[in-house]
Amino acid sequence: MPRYKLVIEYDGSPFRGWQRQTAQPSVQGAIESAVKRFSGEVAGLTCAGRTDTGVHATHQVAHLDLARDWRTDVVRDALNAHLRPNPVAILSAEIVGADFNARHSATRRHYRYRILNRRTPPVLNRAHVWQVPWPLDVGLMRAAAARLLGLHDFTAFRAAECQAKSPLRTLDQLDVAAIPMGLHDEIVVATSARAFLHHQVRSMVGTLMLAGSGRLSADDVADILASRDRSRCGPLAPACGLTLVGVDYVSIITSD
Amino acid sequence: MPRYKLVIEYDGSPFRGWQRQTAQPSVQGAIESAVKRFSGEVAGLTCAGRTDTGVHATHQVAHLDLARDWRTDVVRDALNAHLRPNPVAILSAEIVGADFNARHSATRRHYRYRILNRRTPPVLNRAHVWQVPWPLDVGLMRAAAARLLGLHDFTAFRAAECQAKSPLRTLDQLDVAAIPMGLHDEIVVATSARAFLHHQVRSMVGTLMLAGSGRLSADDVADILASRDRSRCGPLAPACGLTLVGVDYVSIITSD
Repeated sequence: MPRYKLVIEYDGSPFRGWQRQTAQPSVQGAIESAVKRFSGEVAGLTCAGRTDTGVHATHQVAHLDLARDWRTDVVRDALNAHLRPNPVAILSAEIVGADFNARHSATRRHYRYRILNRRTPPVLNRAHVWQVPWPLDVGLMRAAAARLLGLHDFTAFRAAECQAKSPLRTLDQLDVAAIPMGLHDEIVVATSARAFLHHQVRSMVGTLMLAGSGRLSADDVADILASRDRSRCGPLAPACGLTLVGVDYVSIITSD
Repeated sequence: MPRYKLVIEYDGSPFRGWQRQTAQPSVQGAIESAVKRFSGEVAGLTCAGRTDTGVHATHQVAHLDLARDWRTDVVRDALNAHLRPNPVAILSAEIVGADFNARHSATRRHYRYRILNRRTPPVLNRAHVWQVPWPLDVGLMRAAAARLLGLHDFTAFRAAECQAKSPLRTLDQLDVAAIPMGLHDEIVVATSARAFLHHQVRSMVGTLMLAGSGRLSADDVADILASRDRSRCGPLAPACGLTLVGVDYVSIITSD
C-alpha cells in the first residue's frame, strides 16, 4: 500500500478552509473527491498545515495511502483532471516511506502575508492582499517583529479555539519587506517556524500593522507577548492576505 | 476647464478591452460612467494604450477635461467610490496643462507578459498568466529576442486590423527572465517602446515561445521579421498574460 506525498497549490477564496466539512466546500474534500473519481478508493489526506477559510497555498504538502502502485505522474495528472474546475492543483506526487507523515514529519512551515499599502482599493490582487489605506512605517514594523522572534509563550497571539496542547512556539523568521509597486508599496511579511498556533500569523500581522501605524511601540509589542492576554493583541489580519508557501522535511538519505 | 491626468489599474478579465462599446463592458465605459455619476458631466477619456479584451493594467494613463476645478484627491476618491464593484481603480489624479495628451505626449509604453512554465494548470494566478506546459529554454528565448530590438518594419508581428499608418517601430527593450517559484519557473517578458503595433507584444511573445521550445532558431526569428509576413510569426499569446505596467512622459520644467 504505497504512500504518496503531494505538493498542492490552491486559491482559498471559494473554500471553507482545508479541512473536510459535511456541507461546505473544502480543499481536502475537493482532493479526496478527485482521488475517489480517479482510483475508486476512499482515501483520507493528512496535510502539513490546516489552513483557515480564505487562506491560500502555493506549497501545501499532504500524504495519502492508495492500494495500488500508480505511476506518480499518473496520480498528479489524473487528480488535476478530476479537480477541475476547482482552483486546486497538484504540483507534484512522489512515493514516500510509510514513516513519512505530512504533518508530523514537517520540520518547518513558511507563510507569507501581503499588505497592499495604499489608499486606493485593491483591484488586480484583490483576493490576495489586505489593504491598509494609511501609510505604514516598515522600520517600526521590523523593530516590533524582532521582539517576537525566538521561543515564547504565544498565548496572546492564539485563537480562543486553538487546540494545541502547548502555547510555546519558536519563531524562526518574521521579516518585513517593502516592495515598490510604482505609486505605492506592497508590504510582505515572511515568517517561518516548526509550527504555529491557530491564528498566530494573522494575529502577529495585525499587531505589526498597529506598530507600523505608530499605535504600538516595539516595547508595547513585547509587553503584549509577555502578558499572554489575547485581548491586548492587534486585530486579526484578514485571511485573504495569507499564503502557505512552503513546508520543510528532513531529507532521508538511504544507502543503495 | 482643467485637464486631469489619471493613473489607472484594472483587471481586464471582465471587460471587452479599454475602448467604450455600445453593448459590452469596457474599462473606458466604466470610468466615464463613474465620472458622470460623480460630476454630472459627460467627459470623454483619452488613454495612452488601448488594451485589448482581457489585457490588464497596473499603470494605464488617461486624461479628461472637467468643467469644474475639483481637488485631485476628491476626483480620485469619488471615482473609486463610483467604480465599485468594477475591478478598476484610480491610483492618482493630477491637474495637467491643456497641452498634455495621454496618448500623444507619451514617450514610452512598458508591458509585462507572464508565462507559467509548468505542466500543472494555473490556479492562484489563472487570470494573469499563460500556461506553457513543456519546458522553455530561456537562453534560446533571449537570443531570439535580441534579433527584434531596434528600428524595424514589424508587419510580421502586426494584427490584420491594425490601424497604424506605419509598421515601423523602435523596440527598446525585450527582456526575458526566469523567476523561480518553488517547483517551477515563471517566465516574464518585459518590453518597452515609444509605441507598439496592434497585437505586436502578444505576437512577439508567441514567437519567443516557439524559440524557447526549440522550434524556431534566432535566425528564423530574424527571417520572419525581415519577411514582413504575418502568417510566419508564432501564435498570438493569450491576452490574460499581458499587463500594461507603465507609461513615460517628458517632464515639463516650468520656471516660476
